[in-house]
Amino acid sequence: MSFNSFGRVFRFSTWGESHGPAIGAVVDGCPPGLALSEADIQPWLDLRKPGTSKFTTQRREPDAVRILSGVFEGRTTGTPISLMIDNTDQRSKDYSDVAKAYRPGHADYAYDAKYGFRDYRGGGRSSARETASRVAAGAVARAVIPDVDIFAYVSEIGGDGIDHANFDPAQIAENPFFCPDAQAARRWEKLVDDARLDGSSLGAVVECVAAGVPAGWGAPLYAKLDSELAAAMMSINAVKGVEIGDGFAAARLRGEQNADPMRPGADGPTFLANHAGGIAGGISTGQPIKLRVAFKPTSSILIPVDTVTREGEASQIITKGRHDPCVGIRGVPVVEAMMALVLADQKLLHRAQCGDRAAD
Amino acid sequence: MSFNSFGRVFRFSTWGESHGPAIGAVVDGCPPGLALSEADIQPWLDLRKPGTSKFTTQRREPDAVRILSGVFEGRTTGTPISLMIDNTDQRSKDYSDVAKAYRPGHADYAYDAKYGFRDYRGGGRSSARETASRVAAGAVARAVIPDVDIFAYVSEIGGDGIDHANFDPAQIAENPFFCPDAQAARRWEKLVDDARLDGSSLGAVVECVAAGVPAGWGAPLYAKLDSELAAAMMSINAVKGVEIGDGFAAARLRGEQNADPMRPGADGPTFLANHAGGIAGGISTGQPIKLRVAFKPTSSILIPVDTVTREGEASQIITKGRHDPCVGIRGVPVVEAMMALVLADQKLLHRAQCGDRAAD
Amino acid sequence: MSFNSFGRVFRFSTWGESHGPAIGAVVDGCPPGLALSEADIQPWLDLRKPGTSKFTTQRREPDAVRILSGVFEGRTTGTPISLMIDNTDQRSKDYSDVAKAYRPGHADYAYDAKYGFRDYRGGGRSSARETASRVAAGAVARAVIPDVDIFAYVSEIGGDGIDHANFDPAQIAENPFFCPDAQAARRWEKLVDDARLDGSSLGAVVECVAAGVPAGWGAPLYAKLDSELAAAMMSINAVKGVEIGDGFAAARLRGEQNADPMRPGADGPTFLANHAGGIAGGISTGQPIKLRVAFKPTSSILIPVDTVTREGEASQIITKGRHDPCVGIRGVPVVEAMMALVLADQKLLHRAQCGDRAAD
Amino acid sequence: MSFNSFGRVFRFSTWGESHGPAIGAVVDGCPPGLALSEADIQPWLDLRKPGTSKFTTQRREPDAVRILSGVFEGRTTGTPISLMIDNTDQRSKDYSDVAKAYRPGHADYAYDAKYGFRDYRGGGRSSARETASRVAAGAVARAVIPDVDIFAYVSEIGGDGIDHANFDPAQIAENPFFCPDAQAARRWEKLVDDARLDGSSLGAVVECVAAGVPAGWGAPLYAKLDSELAAAMMSINAVKGVEIGDGFAAARLRGEQNADPMRPGADGPTFLANHAGGIAGGISTGQPIKLRVAFKPTSSILIPVDTVTREGEASQIITKGRHDPCVGIRGVPVVEAMMALVLADQKLLHRAQCGDRAAD
Repeated sequence: MSFNSFGRVFRFSTWGESHGPAIGAVVDGCPPGLALSEADIQPWLDLRKPGTSKFTTQRREPDAVRILSGVFEGRTTGTPISLMIDNTDQRSKDYSDVAKAYRPGHADYAYDAKYGFRDYRGGGRSSARETASRVAAGAVARAVIPDVDIFAYVSEIGGDGIDHANFDPAQIAENPFFCPDAQAARRWEKLVDDARLDGSSLGAVVECVAAGVPAGWGAPLYAKLDSELAAAMMSINAVKGVEIGDGFAAARLRGEQNADPMRPGADGPTFLANHAGGIAGGISTGQPIKLRVAFKPTSSILIPVDTVTREGEASQIITKGRHDPCVGIRGVPVVEAMMALVLADQKLLHRAQCGDRAAD
Repeated sequence: MSFNSFGRVFRFSTWGESHGPAIGAVVDGCPPGLALSEADIQPWLDLRKPGTSKFTTQRREPDAVRILSGVFEGRTTGTPISLMIDNTDQRSKDYSDVAKAYRPGHADYAYDAKYGFRDYRGGGRSSARETASRVAAGAVARAVIPDVDIFAYVSEIGGDGIDHANFDPAQIAENPFFCPDAQAARRWEKLVDDARLDGSSLGAVVECVAAGVPAGWGAPLYAKLDSELAAAMMSINAVKGVEIGDGFAAARLRGEQNADPMRPGADGPTFLANHAGGIAGGISTGQPIKLRVAFKPTSSILIPVDTVTREGEASQIITKGRHDPCVGIRGVPVVEAMMALVLADQKLLHRAQCGDRAAD
Repeated sequence: MSFNSFGRVFRFSTWGESHGPAIGAVVDGCPPGLALSEADIQPWLDLRKPGTSKFTTQRREPDAVRILSGVFEGRTTGTPISLMIDNTDQRSKDYSDVAKAYRPGHADYAYDAKYGFRDYRGGGRSSARETASRVAAGAVARAVIPDVDIFAYVSEIGGDGIDHANFDPAQIAENPFFCPDAQAARRWEKLVDDARLDGSSLGAVVECVAAGVPAGWGAPLYAKLDSELAAAMMSINAVKGVEIGDGFAAARLRGEQNADPMRPGADGPTFLANHAGGIAGGISTGQPIKLRVAFKPTSSILIPVDTVTREGEASQIITKGRHDPCVGIRGVPVVEAMMALVLADQKLLHRAQCGDRAAD
Repeated sequence: MSFNSFGRVFRFSTWGESHGPAIGAVVDGCPPGLALSEADIQPWLDLRKPGTSKFTTQRREPDAVRILSGVFEGRTTGTPISLMIDNTDQRSKDYSDVAKAYRPGHADYAYDAKYGFRDYRGGGRSSARETASRVAAGAVARAVIPDVDIFAYVSEIGGDGIDHANFDPAQIAENPFFCPDAQAARRWEKLVDDARLDGSSLGAVVECVAAGVPAGWGAPLYAKLDSELAAAMMSINAVKGVEIGDGFAAARLRGEQNADPMRPGADGPTFLANHAGGIAGGISTGQPIKLRVAFKPTSSILIPVDTVTREGEASQIITKGRHDPCVGIRGVPVVEAMMALVLADQKLLHRAQCGDRAAD
C-alpha cells in the first residue's frame, strides 16, 4: 500500500507540490515493447494546460514532460517510466494570509490537523497541479490499451446541462469547455464569465465513455471495475460524486426498466440498453463503460468567507491569485487519464489471472 | 493486491459462494487487546438477516457467526480473525434455466466472459450473500473505533424520498425499511409490496453518517478518504453511485454557497455547514462523515426479459426464487459495515504515519 | 499489505492457532478452470503430517483438508479458494508454565512485547502447525504451474551432511528424513534418536530444486525472484538462512569461476554451470531454480534453560510436550509449498506484464 | 504490488537506468515534521560513491542528490519525497559487444527472455547504479528511526575472513574496504588488487548490525522481520545469500546451544546470547538485529567467457569498462540502507497495529 500510488499491476505514483521545482509520476509495470515518446504524452498535457482561455486559470505553465527512464530506442523496456514536469510559473507572491488562516473548502485545516503543519504555497500537495502528473501517466496507459477509445466531456456547469439531442462529439474540441452541445457552450461563456467576474466559481459534471473494452475485465469483489473507477475518480481534487451507468437514476427505476436485455449478435450478445454502464458484477460486459463525475465549485474565490486562524481566532479570508472559475473544465483530461489508468491495469490483471484468451 | 481483500493495514478478505457449505472473512491487522466475542458480531448480522419481513427475501438463514481464530480469552490477539457463517438454507432447486441463459443485470454473462464458466447456483460468488461476511468483519472494525458512531438509513425507495423535516433516528429501528421518517415508511409498505406482487423490484438510496471521527484521518492523494469510501461502497452488490457530502448537488452550487465557513470553537474550529461531508483534501475535518449510496433495483425479477443462451440463441428468462424486492433495504447494515471498515483502516494508517498525537 | 498474506497476484492468506478449532488458508487470484479437489491437496499434507515416525512429533492430526469455496464441478472458478483443516488433537494440558515464563528461542517474549499478551497454548499463532495451511495452499499453486517439477530434501542434520555422490532422488521417499542419500539416512536415525532421547533437538538444511521454469519469470528490482524466494523461505518457522544457487559459497569464488557460461542449444542457450541457481538479474534463466534453507534446532527441548517470568523474575524452563526433535525434517514439504506458491505468483505476474508470449 | 517498490507503510520506489539522464527514488509514507535536507542524505551517498579508491570502479559520479518534493522549510511534510541524482559520467562507449552477446552472470539473457529486448547500455536497469537510489532513500529512513544505530562492514573477501578478535568498529572508516580488522584490510589490498590486475573479481560477505531496536517490531507471519530483511537484502544486485543471527551455523547446533537464555535485567530481560540475531517469531526481541549477506563476485570481468549471441551463435565475451573488482565493498552502505528502510517501515507498521505503547 502506498498513499500516493494507484493501480495493482500497472501502477503509478505521483510526487510534487505546486510550488516546488517540479512534479512527476513513476509508472511501474508497463508492458515492454510499446512505442512511447514525449510526443505521445505532450498533447494530452496540452489539453489540461492552464492559461488557454479566460475560463481557466491564468497561470502559464508550458507543462513540458520529460521521460527520464524506462524507454529505450522509442520503446518501453518494462522498467519504471519516470515522467517529470518542471514548475516554471511560481509567481513570487505573498502567502502570509494562507499561512495564517484556513481557506474553507480547501485542505488547509485538514492538513494541519493531520500533519501538524503544511506547505501552504499554492496549496502544496493538495493543488490541482498534481493532476498534470496523472495526465502524463494516463498517456502511457493509453499505449497499453490501444483498442480502447476514451472520451470525456462536460455535461453540466453550475446546474445548466447539455441537451443530449444536441450531442455532437466533434464539438468537444471546438469550445473551451469540452462541451459536446454547441448551444450549451455558448450559454456557458456568459455563465462562467459572470462567475469569474463575481469572484465566484461554479461546479460541473463530467461524463466519460470508454468504448472497445472487451467483456471480462474487472474482478469480483474488491477489485470490481465499478469500485476501481469510483476510487480513481474520487481521488481527483474537487470530485464529490461518481455514478456508473445510470447511477442514482437507477435507484428510481424498477427492475424491468433497469435490465439491459440481450439479443444474439454477430460477435456475441448484443445489448438493447446500457443502464449498467458496461459493467455487471464488477466485470465489463463489452458495452461502453460510462460514468459521471461531480466536481464541486473551485474553493478559491474572491468572496470573503468566515474562517479561523491557525491560532484559533475568528477571521475572514479571500483567496487571491489565478484560479479556475470552474475547476471541472480542466478536469476533463484528468477524468480521461484516470479511466485509461484503471483500464490498463485491469487489462493486465485480467491477463494475469485468465491469460490472453479473453484479454482482447 | 488481492481481488477479494479490502483495506491497507486493517484488512479483510472474504470467501464463499451462496450455495457452498459456508462463507467467511479473515480480518488481518486488528489491534491486540480489544474485547471481542461472537456476541459482539451477531447483532449486526441479525440486522442484515434475510427472512425478517415480507419486504426482504424469504430465504431463511440463521447467519450464526463463529470466530475460529485471533481471539483468546475474549480479547483480540493481533493475529488473523477468521469468521465463518454456515450456509444452511440452500434449497434444492432446479438451476437449469440460469445455467443455460444469462439473466440481464446479473453477473452471469460477465463471469462467463471472464472465467469461461461459472458457479450458477444462486449467483455463486456474485450473490449478495457475500455481504454477510462484510457485516461480520465490520463488527470487528467497530471495536477498533469505539468513539465513532455510525448509522445508515434508507432515504429513498423507487424515487419516493423521505422528508428531512420528519427525520427521527429513533424511527430507523421501528420499521422494516431502516427508514427515519415514519410517514415514508408507511408509504413504502405499499410501494414495496406492490413491486413484490408485480414480480418487479425497486431501487433505493442509502445514506450513512459517521460521527466522532477526529480531524486528520485519510491521506492524500490515492488513499483519500473520499476515494477509499467510494471504492468501499461501489464494491457492494447493486451499488451504482456514491456521493460524499453534497455530491452531485455541489456541482450546482457556487463557490461561496459550497464553502463550509469556520468559527472558533471550544475544541478547535466549528464549521457552519458541512457541504463537504466531513472531508477536505481527502482528510477528515472532524465534522460528521456523510455519504449517499445508490442501489439499483434487484435484477432478479419474475417479469420475463429478453436474453441469450450460452449457445447464443435468443431466449427469455424470469428469475424464480426468493429475492429481495428492494435489495437496498438490506444494504443498510452493509453500508455501515463498509464505513466502519474504512474508518478502522484509516485510523491505523494515520497512526502509522503520524503517531498517536492526532489519532484520536 | 497484509501481515498474514503472501503473493502479489496469486496470493494466499493463512489464519489459525495450534489450539483453536481449526486452521486454514484463503487462496485468491487462482486462474479459473483448473482441475482441483481435496484429493489433489491431501497427499501433500500427509507428507507433512505429524506422528508418522518417532523422528517427528507424536501429536496425531489427520490434517484432513476441506475446500469450502472457489471450486465448482471439480474446477477452480477464479474466486477465492477457502481451505480448512480441523485441529483434532489438542490434548488437554497444563500450560501454566508457558503462560508464566518465556521459553528462550520461542516467540513468547516477543509476542508479549508486541501485543501485550499472547495465546500461550501450544505456541498459538507461532506454532509450526500453521505450515499445514501453507502446504494446502501450495498444492493449489502446483495446479497453476503443471510443467514445473519441484522437489526438496534434507541435505544436512546436526552438521552431518549427505554425500552428493550418493544422491538418489528415489531415496527421498524411502526414509523418514526426506534424505536422498541412503547412507546418511541410516546415520541420521541414530543421530536424531539420540537427540530425542537427550531431550534435545537438531538443526537441518533443506535444499529445493524447481525444474521446468521457463526463462523470464521474476521482475527487477523489488520483485526479483531471489528476493521473493528469500522472503518466502524466511517466513517459515525456524528458518534463519537462505541461499540461492551457490549462496555464500559464491562469495568465495572468482568471477570466472562463478560465471555460468553458455553454449548454443536446441531450444535456446545451454548453460555449462548453474552457480546462479537459475536466476540472473532476479529473472529465471530457464535453468533449474536451486536454493538452500537453514532450519535452527527446535526450541522446545526437555533440557532446562535460564529464563525470566512475565513478572521479570529469574526462572528455568523446560518445554514438555510432543515436539519434533528436528523441525527441519517436516520443513521439506513446507519449503516445496513455498517454492510452488512463489512460482505460481511469478508466472501470473509475468503474464500480466508480458503476455503469454514468454509465459511458458 | 509494484515491481520497483519496497515497504508497506513507509515505502519507496526507484527508477532509472545507468545511462539515462538520471536515477531517483520516491519515498512515500514518511512521517511529517522530521528534519531533512540534502545534507542529511549526501554523506551516505558519498560512502557508496564510485571512484574513491582503486578497489572500486573508476566511473566518477558526484552522485549529488536533490530533494524535489515532500520537504518544506527543512522538515518532511508527510507527502512523497522525490529524490533525484543526475547521471553525469556516461562515457560514450561502444556497446555493440554487449548488445550482440550475453554476458554470463549478468541479467542480459534473462532480460531479453522476459521483455524481448533490453537497454544494454551499462546494464540498464540491472546496473548496480540503481543502489544509489536506495542509499538516498535509506538516509530518509534513518530520520524515522533516530534511536537505531546501524552499521555494516565487510567480513570476508574472496574467502579471506576477518578475525573477530581484531574487531574494531573504528577501523571501518579507516580503510577502503569497510573492514573492521586492520590486519585483514592490509591483506585485502593485495588480494583485491591482484584480482583487479588479473581482470577478475572477488565475492564478499557483508555483516550488518542494528542496535537500539525495541522489542516488538515485525509481524507474524508473512511480514516477519526475518522475511522482510531477507527480501530486502536479496533484492540487492549480486546478493545470493542471507543469514539472520547464526544462520546456517544454527543448523549445526543443538537446541540447548542455540537457545538465547534470559535473565532479569534493569529494563526487561537480559539475554545471555544472540544466536537468533535479535528476532524471535519474526519479532524483534530488543537485542541487536544481526545479519550476513553474501555478494557474488562481479560478473563483469576481463577474462573471456563462453557465451552465445542474440542470434544464438557461439561466442566469447569479455566485459570491458570500469568495474568494481569486488562489488561487495560498495555494497556496505546499500546493506545499511536496506536495513534502515525495513526498520523504518516496521516501526510504522507496529505503531499502526499496536499504537505508540511499545513503539519506542
